Amino acid sequence: MHGLIGLDWGTSSLRAFRFDGAGALVETRARPWGIRQLPDGGYDAALAGITTGWPALPRLACGMVGSRGGWREMPYLDLPADAVQLGRALGHLRAADGRDVHLVPGLRDPHGPDVMRGEETQLLGALALRPALADACTFIQPGTHSKWTVVRDGAVRSFRTLMTGELFAALRQHSILGATGAATVDDIEAFERGAAAARDSGAAGALSRLFSTRALMLDGVLAPASVPDYLSGLLIGEEFRTALADGLARRDTPLQLIGEAALCARYRRAAALFDIELPPAIADAAARGLWLLATQAGLVPPGPIPSVSETTPAC
Amino acid sequence: MHGLIGLDWGTSSLRAFRFDGAGALVETRARPWGIRQLPDGGYDAALAGITTGWPALPRLACGMVGSRGGWREMPYLDLPADAVQLGRALGHLRAADGRDVHLVPGLRDPHGPDVMRGEETQLLGALALRPALADACTFIQPGTHSKWTVVRDGAVRSFRTLMTGELFAALRQHSILGATGAATVDDIEAFERGAAAARDSGAAGALSRLFSTRALMLDGVLAPASVPDYLSGLLIGEEFRTALADGLARRDTPLQLIGEAALCARYRRAAALFDIELPPAIADAAARGLWLLATQAGLVPPGPIPSVSETTPAC
Repeated sequence: MHGLIGLDWGTSSLRAFRFDGAGALVETRARPWGIRQLPDGGYDAALAGITTGWPALPRLACGMVGSRGGWREMPYLDLPADAVQLGRALGHLRAADGRDVHLVPGLRDPHGPDVMRGEETQLLGALALRPALADACTFIQPGTHSKWTVVRDGAVRSFRTLMTGELFAALRQHSILGATGAATVDDIEAFERGAAAARDSGAAGALSRLFSTRALMLDGVLAPASVPDYLSGLLIGEEFRTALADGLARRDTPLQLIGEAALCARYRRAAALFDIELPPAIADAAARGLWLLATQAGLVPPGPIPSVSETTPAC
Repeated sequence: MHGLIGLDWGTSSLRAFRFDGAGALVETRARPWGIRQLPDGGYDAALAGITTGWPALPRLACGMVGSRGGWREMPYLDLPADAVQLGRALGHLRAADGRDVHLVPGLRDPHGPDVMRGEETQLLGALALRPALADACTFIQPGTHSKWTVVRDGAVRSFRTLMTGELFAALRQHSILGATGAATVDDIEAFERGAAAARDSGAAGALSRLFSTRALMLDGVLAPASVPDYLSGLLIGEEFRTALADGLARRDTPLQLIGEAALCARYRRAAALFDIELPPAIADAAARGLWLLATQAGLVPPGPIPSVSETTPAC
């Protein structure tokens, strides 16, 4: 039996991918067993649970499972870094079932400094799926901690983390901006208004416009139920303003989203307000990245990147 | 019996000032009875409690007591606005004891939009204490919602709210940046490092450097116990970067702090990193502002601003 079990093991969720010997994705499973909410029995129980009934294949995990406070801390690999270097830098641990779990290290940008764990595997998967982007591209990976990453000549050159998702949640749940008492509606106009406010904030930046959320509501021109969408637009718009201001995004270099459909749709809308046309996002890139790294590390036989699970455009 | 009872009634605290007929401050009292934490019996009970034993003098209140959700909503006065206009715009309500409480309206900057409640009274008090600043000055009022306000020819011309204090609390208590598990030390070097990071962020702004807090900690160059001070420096530094970027602060115009000593000391340190020398802060400006507005509105006889309680430099 040939193949691979890939694990995308983050803070709040765990996904497992079973590949056959040719790298085709046979089955995907998801559990809410992130490293902060493990089941009884901890990591070993989570691993056994999510792979129940699967054959004893090599296992490769990426994400926060390799962080300080994870199953085993893997040192970061400093930039620049490509798939070959990451494949050589894998570590491993011995699970309770007596077999190894291999671990992908995170990446560290010494200029910043900045760090990522898990996103590097998605990036490699996206590059495998869209090789033409390897020459020069800035990838956007929206989320709790959004990453903007510059790839040139096949290697990751620099990246920046923007805490958009976490900031949104903290402001909405724990600041006066969330204290509207109103049910939330889906108001794309409010979202675009927020993104435009970030764009128009110029060098001052969106932090200086945060309170406008409340002032517009008091003015009666922003409905309380639309406050979350305005705030979301302001923070996502700020990602684009920031990335353009400091050169992480350049108008002469392609921009490519990687991530989940609904969230990426917001980024495409915000981009349009900056006169940037973003192509559809690449979804499920982590699975491709895990397979690629497994081949680089010799865990599975090398071969072409299968196109079987070539991702449906997500948004 | 002549005199005035001034009330500085905010979200989380209530302060009462008793003035004699000449405007000298006779007694100050403070209670934790902000409009979000009123005692049993509500506003009337709080008012009766904090003025127990005081004579039946005219009463004038500023702050969130006049907000939507306060005792009575007072409309905002649009900029530009000065002491005469604010004095004419006072409202009032009838308390359960059968006598009036006069209320100071807040200010609204239609460009923004932006709003303040309570800070306008402190501003007027500061101008009364330092008349030379009335020609041209930008006032900084640090806090949960910091205000940067441009005064020219005796009138408030524009202002901007920066949610520094609230953002700091939300990030520290409800984000990965606060999850250090370490006791906090007082680390002024970390504070200055954060403020310098905001300064050096250029047009991208400090939001793009927020995650550096965590990356520096993982790098081992920022102690977990110093994370709050670094974050404080980053956010306060961002106030200066922002204000300089959008013209609210100008290097040819005096800058003046109004506020509490320890917090203002941080702003003076951050300012120094921007090559700005800030004079000591003006403290307790609300009491002076309330007296001034009471004279403007005819609640007490007009007269010179007494210098009895001329404020001790706070920091």
